[in-house]
Amino acid sequence: MRGTVIYAPGDVRLEDRADPRLIVPTDAIIRISAACVCGSDLWDYRGVNPVTRPVPMGHEYVGVVEEVGSDVATIKPGQFVIGSFFASDNTCPNCRAGYQSSCVHRELVGGAQAEALRVPLADGTLVATPDLPAPELIPSLLTLSDVMGTGWFAAVAAQVKPGQTVAVVGDGAVGLLGVLAASRFGAERIIVMSRHETRQKLATEYGATDIVTERGDEGAARIKELTGGIGADAVLECVGTAESMRQAVASTRPGGYVGYVGVPHGVRLNGEELFFTHVGLHGGPAPVRRFLPELIDLVLKGDINPGKVFDLTLPLDQVAEGYRAMSERRAIKALLQP
Amino acid sequence: MRGTVIYAPGDVRLEDRADPRLIVPTDAIIRISAACVCGSDLWDYRGVNPVTRPVPMGHEYVGVVEEVGSDVATIKPGQFVIGSFFASDNTCPNCRAGYQSSCVHRELVGGAQAEALRVPLADGTLVATPDLPAPELIPSLLTLSDVMGTGWFAAVAAQVKPGQTVAVVGDGAVGLLGVLAASRFGAERIIVMSRHETRQKLATEYGATDIVTERGDEGAARIKELTGGIGADAVLECVGTAESMRQAVASTRPGGYVGYVGVPHGVRLNGEELFFTHVGLHGGPAPVRRFLPELIDLVLKGDINPGKVFDLTLPLDQVAEGYRAMSERRAIKALLQP
Repeated sequence: MRGTVIYAPGDVRLEDRADPRLIVPTDAIIRISAACVCGSDLWDYRGVNPVTRPVPMGHEYVGVVEEVGSDVATIKPGQFVIGSFFASDNTCPNCRAGYQSSCVHRELVGGAQAEALRVPLADGTLVATPDLPAPELIPSLLTLSDVMGTGWFAAVAAQVKPGQTVAVVGDGAVGLLGVLAASRFGAERIIVMSRHETRQKLATEYGATDIVTERGDEGAARIKELTGGIGADAVLECVGTAESMRQAVASTRPGGYVGYVGVPHGVRLNGEELFFTHVGLHGGPAPVRRFLPELIDLVLKGDINPGKVFDLTLPLDQVAEGYRAMSERRAIKALLQP
Repeated sequence: MRGTVIYAPGDVRLEDRADPRLIVPTDAIIRISAACVCGSDLWDYRGVNPVTRPVPMGHEYVGVVEEVGSDVATIKPGQFVIGSFFASDNTCPNCRAGYQSSCVHRELVGGAQAEALRVPLADGTLVATPDLPAPELIPSLLTLSDVMGTGWFAAVAAQVKPGQTVAVVGDGAVGLLGVLAASRFGAERIIVMSRHETRQKLATEYGATDIVTERGDEGAARIKELTGGIGADAVLECVGTAESMRQAVASTRPGGYVGYVGVPHGVRLNGEELFFTHVGLHGGPAPVRRFLPELIDLVLKGDINPGKVFDLTLPLDQVAEGYRAMSERRAIKALLQP
């Protein structure tokens, strides 16, 4: 089969690889219907994370089950399934607490920008749709594998409640879907930080009421200004840099929470400073699996359309262009069709 | 009047000072019935915080109102009152959100280890008891001015819920009262980290079910061991050092919260490490004012007896011995009688 491999920063290739096969009896093999490029893939592509050997890329996927191991009980060949980037047994104490991405048996799923994929812990990881979905729903279902679930978790972790003022730091796909999540949670005012017209437009469509173009300390000052000097009730940090985290904390009112879902790079928090802000922090790799049943239902009913974040659709063999377009911010998010 | 002044680390003196007087019309003057030495006073006493000039000490107090300014409407001379170490207007957005210690008009109260005290923003800061309390209730009422409210906030910030397993880092008065709070909140199992027999005994009396004597990484490992490898649902960090904070985070299960109320000294958090723990953080200077009405009620009804943390009672002129005894850990907490 063909699959995507990164060799070095900027060097992503589609190449012939061995077909994935069942390794342990809890695995499943799925034929990928659609995959995509994640903002976190760009950490490698841009050389922020070191690339020391060729690595199969991709961790967002929807597809049709081809084969399951002998211990797989609920997932069946022929089903259309969605899974998270962390495989999880969905039965351990961390899973039962809703933190499947901290499952005691978790495994990172990798190599999804390909024609086929091995998914570990298939019963715990995958959720099947009732029927094969209409093709036009596939982009939205694909987002549930990571970005929509991650934006949703940001809003959960920030404890967004009806009537609140929410600020979103980051106008990538996760930030935009954080806007959508905050809107579904009943936020009255949603301030998105964005300088990009197409992203501002989609943010507005998803429920943003205010746009702030300033960044860093100026951005935080602008949010304070928009909130009577107090700060937003909840802030979604969807970037992961030292600057974005500082901005998120500085934009939050005392007693409010920052839900942070951008993988932190170089973020150091001064305990004493944080203490006197009274700002709470909660985040981490989103437990996407927790939200799959609810979000699949919302997509199938047409209540949410997170698939709009894909403003570029490419055949899998143009995967390198997908990375380039996202890295150059020409595209919000690239969908790949095997 | 006589009041306590720190001149240098280890050098605390009771001396004659000017009587406090009304400065602005929202002030009140109270005659101190009892004051005490706070664990945070020891940061100065031990030279961890620099002492660059003589500073009046003490921020925990109960007393009888002597005089109020012309703008004070609800607090009256003759009332027995309790207030927080942060004066607050109790009307600004932060106060209304329950974070009075981030009041937009907040002022630190200082100089309470004395015979009399000026309390700013009297209407917002002070809460009066219905009647003059029985003398035996005064120690418990005094704890509401800081330590009991702070332990209570630690449990609130850690989101302690009925049936949970809670760990408490720190066996000072705040940690012990954090145990009491967790117990009142319905925690099923309360693990306290302590090596001191008298403190262990009081912790047990307040509801601790397990005692861990290991510290740091070993302490966290022990908590993991006691919780099936997962960690406590909620952890109360009541110390404020880099080691205690690291231990608290490492003792918490994914999705659990650390409620941190020890003023952080040298605490630096690595964003990426925190991210992958899935541990939430919330804390800060306790908004004691929020809890005063409820806690006064519990003390007056005899439902809680936080005053037991005072295992040393001294006349005010022996204030220096109070500091020494606490610094040498001969006493949990020293009550001072003017």
